[in-house]
Amino acid sequence: MHQFTNDYSEGACPEVLQALVQTNAEQTPGYTTDAYCARAARLVLDACGLAAEEADVRFVVGGTAANVISLCGLLDRPYDAVVCTRDGHVNTHETGALESCGHKVLATDDADGFLSVEKVDEIVRANAAFGNHMTRPRALYVSDTTELGGVYDARRLEALAAYAHDHDMRLFVDGARIAPALLSPANDLTLPRIARLADAMYLGGTKNGLLFGEAVVIRDPQLRQDFPWLMKQHQNLLAKGRLLGVQFEAALTGGAPGTADEAPYWRCARTADETAARLGQGLIDLGFEATAPVSSNQLFFRVSPAVATALVRDLGCEVFFDEGATRVVRFVTSWATTAADVDEALAYAAELRRTTGA
Amino acid sequence: MHQFTNDYSEGACPEVLQALVQTNAEQTPGYTTDAYCARAARLVLDACGLAAEEADVRFVVGGTAANVISLCGLLDRPYDAVVCTRDGHVNTHETGALESCGHKVLATDDADGFLSVEKVDEIVRANAAFGNHMTRPRALYVSDTTELGGVYDARRLEALAAYAHDHDMRLFVDGARIAPALLSPANDLTLPRIARLADAMYLGGTKNGLLFGEAVVIRDPQLRQDFPWLMKQHQNLLAKGRLLGVQFEAALTGGAPGTADEAPYWRCARTADETAARLGQGLIDLGFEATAPVSSNQLFFRVSPAVATALVRDLGCEVFFDEGATRVVRFVTSWATTAADVDEALAYAAELRRTTGA
Amino acid sequence: MHQFTNDYSEGACPEVLQALVQTNAEQTPGYTTDAYCARAARLVLDACGLAAEEADVRFVVGGTAANVISLCGLLDRPYDAVVCTRDGHVNTHETGALESCGHKVLATDDADGFLSVEKVDEIVRANAAFGNHMTRPRALYVSDTTELGGVYDARRLEALAAYAHDHDMRLFVDGARIAPALLSPANDLTLPRIARLADAMYLGGTKNGLLFGEAVVIRDPQLRQDFPWLMKQHQNLLAKGRLLGVQFEAALTGGAPGTADEAPYWRCARTADETAARLGQGLIDLGFEATAPVSSNQLFFRVSPAVATALVRDLGCEVFFDEGATRVVRFVTSWATTAADVDEALAYAAELRRTTGA
Amino acid sequence: MHQFTNDYSEGACPEVLQALVQTNAEQTPGYTTDAYCARAARLVLDACGLAAEEADVRFVVGGTAANVISLCGLLDRPYDAVVCTRDGHVNTHETGALESCGHKVLATDDADGFLSVEKVDEIVRANAAFGNHMTRPRALYVSDTTELGGVYDARRLEALAAYAHDHDMRLFVDGARIAPALLSPANDLTLPRIARLADAMYLGGTKNGLLFGEAVVIRDPQLRQDFPWLMKQHQNLLAKGRLLGVQFEAALTGGAPGTADEAPYWRCARTADETAARLGQGLIDLGFEATAPVSSNQLFFRVSPAVATALVRDLGCEVFFDEGATRVVRFVTSWATTAADVDEALAYAAELRRTTGA
Repeated sequence: MHQFTNDYSEGACPEVLQALVQTNAEQTPGYTTDAYCARAARLVLDACGLAAEEADVRFVVGGTAANVISLCGLLDRPYDAVVCTRDGHVNTHETGALESCGHKVLATDDADGFLSVEKVDEIVRANAAFGNHMTRPRALYVSDTTELGGVYDARRLEALAAYAHDHDMRLFVDGARIAPALLSPANDLTLPRIARLADAMYLGGTKNGLLFGEAVVIRDPQLRQDFPWLMKQHQNLLAKGRLLGVQFEAALTGGAPGTADEAPYWRCARTADETAARLGQGLIDLGFEATAPVSSNQLFFRVSPAVATALVRDLGCEVFFDEGATRVVRFVTSWATTAADVDEALAYAAELRRTTGA
Repeated sequence: MHQFTNDYSEGACPEVLQALVQTNAEQTPGYTTDAYCARAARLVLDACGLAAEEADVRFVVGGTAANVISLCGLLDRPYDAVVCTRDGHVNTHETGALESCGHKVLATDDADGFLSVEKVDEIVRANAAFGNHMTRPRALYVSDTTELGGVYDARRLEALAAYAHDHDMRLFVDGARIAPALLSPANDLTLPRIARLADAMYLGGTKNGLLFGEAVVIRDPQLRQDFPWLMKQHQNLLAKGRLLGVQFEAALTGGAPGTADEAPYWRCARTADETAARLGQGLIDLGFEATAPVSSNQLFFRVSPAVATALVRDLGCEVFFDEGATRVVRFVTSWATTAADVDEALAYAAELRRTTGA
Repeated sequence: MHQFTNDYSEGACPEVLQALVQTNAEQTPGYTTDAYCARAARLVLDACGLAAEEADVRFVVGGTAANVISLCGLLDRPYDAVVCTRDGHVNTHETGALESCGHKVLATDDADGFLSVEKVDEIVRANAAFGNHMTRPRALYVSDTTELGGVYDARRLEALAAYAHDHDMRLFVDGARIAPALLSPANDLTLPRIARLADAMYLGGTKNGLLFGEAVVIRDPQLRQDFPWLMKQHQNLLAKGRLLGVQFEAALTGGAPGTADEAPYWRCARTADETAARLGQGLIDLGFEATAPVSSNQLFFRVSPAVATALVRDLGCEVFFDEGATRVVRFVTSWATTAADVDEALAYAAELRRTTGA
Repeated sequence: MHQFTNDYSEGACPEVLQALVQTNAEQTPGYTTDAYCARAARLVLDACGLAAEEADVRFVVGGTAANVISLCGLLDRPYDAVVCTRDGHVNTHETGALESCGHKVLATDDADGFLSVEKVDEIVRANAAFGNHMTRPRALYVSDTTELGGVYDARRLEALAAYAHDHDMRLFVDGARIAPALLSPANDLTLPRIARLADAMYLGGTKNGLLFGEAVVIRDPQLRQDFPWLMKQHQNLLAKGRLLGVQFEAALTGGAPGTADEAPYWRCARTADETAARLGQGLIDLGFEATAPVSSNQLFFRVSPAVATALVRDLGCEVFFDEGATRVVRFVTSWATTAADVDEALAYAAELRRTTGA
């Protein structure tokens, strides 16, 4: 049975895999200085509506690297800190990587996954009140979609960008799952809009149809200088760098989202969103309780411990929160999930519901 | 008028100053390897009821250094983190020093200044649930007195030590104000008891009658090895190190607390506590609202913004919390505060109360 | 014309590429916890003659990550340093990565690429003479083959291991090019012997027929615990970790070096060594001056500036040393270099020699 | 017998000690924000010929802190490195403090204690040749006097400053012993000249008549912003900060060097230099071999092992280099050394020479 564990359980979508095979024998310069990376960078800039002189595109292998390297550059001084929600990936699931580079992570108590200007401002004021005895909040970190599957709307993201830039701070957008965000019915932002609000952001490949790879779009002038050095210092400058360019070029070759010849990158996200919507609606119809609206390819449901155990065992779900009497489990769909996979899972869930009465 | 800003506003108590003057012309080896430091270390161990083979005593200039150097050694691996309350000094007022050394600070939401086993356990469980994607809580940080002037009782501190040691964690006690804690009526701990519960702790000198200096008592075997190296690496190995030994020897020469010939170190703390109690009771009698029981030499009162402004201007108070309609201000007494200083301040406060009606 | 720039200019050898294609659709757990990684780890241990309880195998994407993560764990305390030759990769070509993690690199003035016990001992004594004012040399770093293409013999490596272990130090072997070393005529070591001399070492994949990937073999008990945490903290825990297992399993499936069904990993190295030997002898026969014996797949020749310019332009050589009147250029062969490629290059070199008279 | 171990073996010169005693009872704001520090800063600026808007003066407790904090700010990006001689204090005797803050130290092989433009340029070129695979040399570190007692002349220091500023690098001058340098007959620089050549430098107090304290003069705009934050993060923001201001004010109150009412700071250095000259000439007259011209208060002599043992035991000398058959020992004079102390030492040395025949 298809497992809904994560969106990095399978390999690459067909076009990406084929491109890797076809280019395998070529000799190219190393360390992302090859022509494939150059072409892929142009495709990324085009998708973002940016001219070459406005931004650099750099390719790294994974999302944590994209986050850490970018923030290490955006946090200008050793006493600079980043502000994020308490469940922010940089705060919780990166083994203290930012701290290991010397920087404090200041977490708001926003509970819904979205960073709010109000909570950011509380932290900024509290730090400013004690001058050089506290850190200097210098960057905001948000992920779209959020860790809880939410999708930022224009109002939220513009408010954060405005606050950041009014306070000499930088805005970083973790786009590990930005493609499902952009294709979501809940979305009212465009990629060019996000790319201009953020000082740096990235388009995730690992979770959207590539074997691996993230394309970091950098508008901040200091980070444009820093990134190549930091990539190597952080041990994330891929020797056969063309593998990143080949994959992103293949994924982004084609039309814009919704066009007839939609590029694989967008098709992958569309598939993930649509199968998630089908799964979410199906589960709700069966009487399962969603803890948040289904707006992208992560779905969260509150179930009994016994049901959680079954879902973990048979559908690959993860338990996200242990609430004592109940559990919140997560389902994730991917570019490789099919409608048939969903229907099989729904049949299983229906049976589970009948047998457990939950 | 005497200022109640802090307990490091004046120089040194008479015996300490005199010792510095008397020894000024001597030549001694540098870097705390002299005979004064050796004798002072023995006095510290005696006060802690520890034999020389059980612990090392190291002298550093200030409290932040004592905290950071100790925790950098106790946090064994690069992915180890320390747990403290949200207002813990290492979390808020050290400019991200621990993070600058690579370690995450995990703050509980304990709100009263005391670290609770319940909140620590929440953090330990949450981190353990995600294995190598999260940090490893490895040490507990508490300060006695707390940042809010509270004094740990035996039940609390023993529970924390038991939890730590049951979970292969270390307990560190920041004793910048441990002398006022030990002399407090609220205290039921002894210094030897604290020294045996903690893997490392320190006796503060800066805030208790010395020009500067903290005596770190180290029982943890690894930290005993590390501390001399870390002192130098953290730029806190004093060249004329004997200045620390001379001061601590002078401060600790004399009887135990409460004896007729009480050592200056204990007399200083007694003075700070007694003048604080006199000030606190006087303010309460005048109708001021204490936000916490007065148990050591820091006092917190809730006042109107206008009264806060006057207290800051004329008595040197600091505003600790801005609650909108009200302010919480802090008064601190020291070894140098006299009963007359307190009475003058109370007269001022009475007049202030009459004129503002607050 | 074939370029001799590096051994990471092409993609993967056929068996490795095919394995990636065949397994592409499978769903597996992430972060190298899958069955492919488990099987590949067993193959690595088998090749090293180690039982599962004696060592762990961890897979990272690149060589700098393997070096930095391993040394960050082996350098036990914040004041520990690593000793290497002045041209050691960790000293010169990792953008200060080890220093960015807090550790000093102590470089000997060994000039031939091989670390010598004599020079190590000078550094160890010099540091010990100043106690806690200097760092503590704690690990030795060597690479086999060396940065200058040399191959360690048993006498050298055993002497270094004995010195390290006599001085409570650890030995790390960078094996980015260990396969060409093991297949070299100059070699008298076996992989099991190296694996037992070293506290940690790795088998390079990136430069020996994989798309990417290094297999780190860890015997040191502390590093066995640390490595998974450090992988994530250093942003090198691959989400689709099975890609590493799939590749190493494919590369190591087959017979030992020299057997009829030799595994692809050994065949790749043999090809690199043999084409290097053919190229080296051919260049020497043409009158070119080798600066060191040709013993593995890196070759260094001293040429005039004009010849260097031509070799860089047409054969992809790199200039390694600018000696003023002369240049030292490097040729590198790989698993993908053919005898025909070499012969074409030699024909070019012969013509170049005739026209330049150099 | 007077010990010639170091220039931080005694306490403070009389004026400095008296100032500490006289101001002991005063209450002042903490953390160097008091009026004494403000006045001392103006005296330092005056001595440097700088206006308040041109530079900041910050006071730290010790020399290693002054070096590390300054360089951590001047090294702008995480991949920036500092260049110094191989015997530079930041390279050898700070327990890897700069590396612990993330920065590589690039040591030239200059052997005489003076940094040369030629050797700096070699390192700059070597690093530039490999782009983002190597660090970026960003600052030069020199100490005046040097670790070997040498005094920079204008030609050397101006050449280094010109090189630095032509290459977008910063020049830092460690002035732990700058007063003896300025008063040396070998000197042709003025303090205002040095202060304008350097982007940051400091006037040492610890080794020139204060109990402790260094006055850092900062012209670099970024470091002017950073220093207060870095002081706290590096655990070197003294709570009773006025102790630094009181001492420097007392030391610098008085006339310029050579005037009738010469300030204590200059008198201290003059005494150290003059007693060193007397000692050096006396030893040479006795037939001892100086390894370098005596130009400041550190003297180096080559002696037999037996003589070295006696000098260490009886005059407090340190062995600096073990050359096998001979030893190089160091004598240091201070503000507290008298002519009589020197004459007694010379009588001892004469006797030693007679009895050992060395």
